[in-house]
Amino acid sequence: MNLEFDDAVAMLARTPGTLRAWLAGLPDAWLDANEGPETFSARDMMGHLIEGERMDWVPRIRMILDHGESRAFEPFDRFAFRGAIGGRTIESLCEEFEQRRRDNLTWLRRLSLTPEDFARRGRHPAFGAVTLELLSTWTVHDLNHIGQIARVMSKNYSTAVGPWREYLGILSR
Amino acid sequence: MNLEFDDAVAMLARTPGTLRAWLAGLPDAWLDANEGPETFSARDMMGHLIEGERMDWVPRIRMILDHGESRAFEPFDRFAFRGAIGGRTIESLCEEFEQRRRDNLTWLRRLSLTPEDFARRGRHPAFGAVTLELLSTWTVHDLNHIGQIARVMSKNYSTAVGPWREYLGILSR
Repeated sequence: MNLEFDDAVAMLARTPGTLRAWLAGLPDAWLDANEGPETFSARDMMGHLIEGERMDWVPRIRMILDHGESRAFEPFDRFAFRGAIGGRTIESLCEEFEQRRRDNLTWLRRLSLTPEDFARRGRHPAFGAVTLELLSTWTVHDLNHIGQIARVMSKNYSTAVGPWREYLGILSR
Repeated sequence: MNLEFDDAVAMLARTPGTLRAWLAGLPDAWLDANEGPETFSARDMMGHLIEGERMDWVPRIRMILDHGESRAFEPFDRFAFRGAIGGRTIESLCEEFEQRRRDNLTWLRRLSLTPEDFARRGRHPAFGAVTLELLSTWTVHDLNHIGQIARVMSKNYSTAVGPWREYLGILSR
């Protein structure tokens, strides 16, 4: 299935509200759970998503449209958010993500992308030539982290579920 | 980690709002995507979650508290919802799930469960003796389906993401 611009934007627009409904006000036992050293908690993932709105998606779309293959994307630092989330409430992180995503989608819609834009190539530092398949990636990246947040939090109760563990595939991933 | 009753209820209470923020108004291309014959779409999972509120969690908690090991749980039919969701909008499904979950959590809180209740045993048709580890299971079951909804929808763009597929673990599960 190809990207449908309006469908992708519909999904991208819902992610902040989904995360707010899920995470705002949740006890820290859920928000700070992780899968071991150097793994992300739900709170970390909010920081990572905000960093993506700032430094990843929009700058790279711009780079494809403005510079084509002549300039490679800046590598995205997946851990750069760590300093920026210290001491902030989950509500503040949800708020910032919501605001940045809204602004970015307003900008994206105003681009009025054409089929020619979708055929244009940029240069990824590892993959080489890429296109605005970046928009599909942005969308799936959201879903990837929603799934990861569910998985990380579920592991709080890996043993508490007793024999039902067998029916709960999320605990084995 | 053991179940903390208030933490579990905080999570259970947020699931309906999370699903509504995510799914209400989404294009059918997302809601009806599945992973092949006999697999669940996001819309199917809403039906399955509603059926769980009706026929699974509360009746089984009651059975443990009222009958102990003397009576086994009724098996839960994971496909029973199919007739009940035909022709209904996603908004109507979100609404019903929200209402039933709210009522069930009100009932659950009013039980004022004691440590003795948590030690009580019931009888699962496949596992044999089980306890109110069922409450942890209810919670993880929600997270399992949130993760599954993310995964099923992400696969719409399995190929549209191009080379980024390599970074998106959700597409390989």
